[in-house]
Amino acid sequence: MMYGVILAGGSGTRFWPKSREQVPKQLLKICGKGTLVQNTVERLLPLIPIENIFLVTNALHALETCRQMDAFGFLPSQLLAEPVGKNTAPAIALAARILAEENPDAIMAVFPADHVVQDPENFRRILEQGKEVAEKDYLVTLGIPPSRAETGYGYIKKGSPLEEAPKAFAVEQFMEKPDAQTAESCIQDGGYFWNCGVFLWKVSVLLDEIKTHLPDLYNRLDSIVSHTVENKRTFHYRLLDEKGKELYESLASISIDYGILEKSRRVALVPANIQWNDVGAWNALEEVLEKDANGNVVTENVVPMDCSGSIIQGEDRLIAAIGLKDVVVVDTPDALLVCDKNQAQKVKKLVGKLKTENRSEATLGATVQKPWGSYTVLEKKANYLVKRLDVYSGEQLSLQSHNHRTEHWTVVAGSAEIILNGKQFVLQRDESIFIPKYAKHRLSNPSDTLLTLIEVQIGDRIDEDDIVRYQDDYDRV
Amino acid sequence: MMYGVILAGGSGTRFWPKSREQVPKQLLKICGKGTLVQNTVERLLPLIPIENIFLVTNALHALETCRQMDAFGFLPSQLLAEPVGKNTAPAIALAARILAEENPDAIMAVFPADHVVQDPENFRRILEQGKEVAEKDYLVTLGIPPSRAETGYGYIKKGSPLEEAPKAFAVEQFMEKPDAQTAESCIQDGGYFWNCGVFLWKVSVLLDEIKTHLPDLYNRLDSIVSHTVENKRTFHYRLLDEKGKELYESLASISIDYGILEKSRRVALVPANIQWNDVGAWNALEEVLEKDANGNVVTENVVPMDCSGSIIQGEDRLIAAIGLKDVVVVDTPDALLVCDKNQAQKVKKLVGKLKTENRSEATLGATVQKPWGSYTVLEKKANYLVKRLDVYSGEQLSLQSHNHRTEHWTVVAGSAEIILNGKQFVLQRDESIFIPKYAKHRLSNPSDTLLTLIEVQIGDRIDEDDIVRYQDDYDRV
Repeated sequence: MMYGVILAGGSGTRFWPKSREQVPKQLLKICGKGTLVQNTVERLLPLIPIENIFLVTNALHALETCRQMDAFGFLPSQLLAEPVGKNTAPAIALAARILAEENPDAIMAVFPADHVVQDPENFRRILEQGKEVAEKDYLVTLGIPPSRAETGYGYIKKGSPLEEAPKAFAVEQFMEKPDAQTAESCIQDGGYFWNCGVFLWKVSVLLDEIKTHLPDLYNRLDSIVSHTVENKRTFHYRLLDEKGKELYESLASISIDYGILEKSRRVALVPANIQWNDVGAWNALEEVLEKDANGNVVTENVVPMDCSGSIIQGEDRLIAAIGLKDVVVVDTPDALLVCDKNQAQKVKKLVGKLKTENRSEATLGATVQKPWGSYTVLEKKANYLVKRLDVYSGEQLSLQSHNHRTEHWTVVAGSAEIILNGKQFVLQRDESIFIPKYAKHRLSNPSDTLLTLIEVQIGDRIDEDDIVRYQDDYDRV
Repeated sequence: MMYGVILAGGSGTRFWPKSREQVPKQLLKICGKGTLVQNTVERLLPLIPIENIFLVTNALHALETCRQMDAFGFLPSQLLAEPVGKNTAPAIALAARILAEENPDAIMAVFPADHVVQDPENFRRILEQGKEVAEKDYLVTLGIPPSRAETGYGYIKKGSPLEEAPKAFAVEQFMEKPDAQTAESCIQDGGYFWNCGVFLWKVSVLLDEIKTHLPDLYNRLDSIVSHTVENKRTFHYRLLDEKGKELYESLASISIDYGILEKSRRVALVPANIQWNDVGAWNALEEVLEKDANGNVVTENVVPMDCSGSIIQGEDRLIAAIGLKDVVVVDTPDALLVCDKNQAQKVKKLVGKLKTENRSEATLGATVQKPWGSYTVLEKKANYLVKRLDVYSGEQLSLQSHNHRTEHWTVVAGSAEIILNGKQFVLQRDESIFIPKYAKHRLSNPSDTLLTLIEVQIGDRIDEDDIVRYQDDYDRV
């Protein structure tokens, strides 16, 4: 029996402006059929049934992650929402502690949610090998044969072959991200592998090691688990109650590599030639997507002229590019990135700068996720605002009123149920309603399909904060 | 008495995507206080009163040009709309022919509408010098002392000083755009000036020369003038009737330089050190706008990081730029240009390519000019469309109906008068109305201020062509 634990806690600032605080990299379509987390699950399904797949995400992304998992028949109760990221050790420990209740001798495999594996069949073969090694009570880590002197990854030095497990090796050394010279000598010397963050171990063995090397963490696991609760509506994922949050927030932030693997004597390495890529920044796109004859990676709405080695990612708008060499262009409705390809690592720093300047584009996109769906600003002026609202089937906004604005709603898809000053209205596509200032109103989508409406807000003060909530399904009153 | 004739017929493909077929370069704010044509007029006003200023534009741009001129007290009857561009000779000849009716001995000065002069005081001083030379029956051309071996301009070779006009010279040779080697030797040899398209002459002298060198054109001038008519509403500019259009279209397309100046023996050169720039492409912006410490020319909403020598022109959206060197970025709501600065001349070719691919972005922007105002697409989907309509004071759309869509209108600024199936409605800000399929309707703005409304179109076919017009102020039935 094998369980998969997918760590989907990344904040993904390096894929700004497509990724934002609300929509990190693992929730984006970057390559392959689905989003990165969907692709990660799909890659495992031939080996691990969906009911054995467990996800850990930040609470911010729990709902959207459940939505993305819905098509696979994923059980939301197998998603645990962290109130705050504490690096990998606490997330993995908590997952192990929960799985131990079902089966302490189960093999648990850990996967980052936002990496690409271009040879999934071999990947699954190697996971099966790793499982055999883990069954012999090893902490197994997959190692990627390095193809260049990369300074962005940790390295693992291979030791001698393990007697009881063919194709597996002892680990001589874990090395955190090296400098350029050290990386170069790792490649020259041979016997080094990239640490790709994929691990396999018996749940009981891991918990033993945590008890030894991270006793503080170990001692709080039971208590934290006792404070997990179910999300009340829509998707019943697990989150922590107030006390649980407090406990979790007090944990030390530490990686499983540093906290356990570098200290344990039971670590084994299984080399994995699986065409792995961590898509760590925009320049990685040329490694995972198809290039044109001039080495450009471009989306549909791009007209390149005399460009080479460039990565141009558009959406609806036309992008014309002339004479670019090694330039990254990423276009979104509210923010544009143009970046030298060899400086793509600086995007993270840029997002930090935007945050210190309090620019909303650092965290929110043109489409803002809400528990009931999302809204997209189509035009914002001083005295009016035009928005598209998308309300998921079965969801409803809070019962609310506004002191400074009126709202004109026109349904363009689906149907809406509206409570306005105590009266109920049902609006179909092509029908509209007027919400006066101060009127108590509520918008619901009782139908089976997405409700889309265009909202025109008019007032002398147009502001998201101009809202009085009387009742809310999502505890926002 | 001096007259100014401003040639505002440029199509301005080289400033795409800010310039489009509907909004060429002279109608854009590129540098200085107003649009380029406004700046051109303002620069002349201390010397030439507004009632002596005459404009020639393409018919496509006549209305918008009148609007831009309105604040100066410009008389629309002094604007002549060409049905089609025929280069400079026909436009200048026609203006001369019209001015001759008022005063055949007047001095007429000709100016391109879309150039920049950074020393306007000296410019006006030189125009006064030029006027004195023109009064002695010379065709005067201003010559710019060249600062580099530019291959994009024509050159004028200075001859001997004129006895009767100090500071003016005979012209030894006109040279069309030279190759790089020839341009280099022009600079080395000295005595060459750039042809900047500014000319002064007595109306009668020019007409004499046209009679000699372009007799076909001369012979048709009277007939064309007899076919000018007034635009019926809004601005009463002059245009040609059907017969006039036919005549104009049959004219040979020829420049005044090639048609007259290269052949005439009465040409004089007046050197003009006026910090002139023809802003011929995006890279010229660094010559006419202020640069930051790293040599970048950026607008407000741009966050540059480690960039140099780049030109980044945004609008509402945030543009983040990292590590760019000599890159041009021009952002508009529906199209984006990213271009190597040293290949900015290729923008024209790119627009040609877009046209052959039938991309609407080659000709229309997100905001589409209409005789009654403009509309701006805020969101376009298969089954609905959200638009902002801006209707000028006193204007009205056609009486119309749609076979495939309904319309929901919400007034967000100004007030609207609406005829709907024969009934009249007056809508103020914050009021809305529903236009059913097939309903005959008409929208007017009888007020003194701009009317702005948000239109949501809903239907199974959303198409600008889905319109039946019953009556129209602008002859579009």
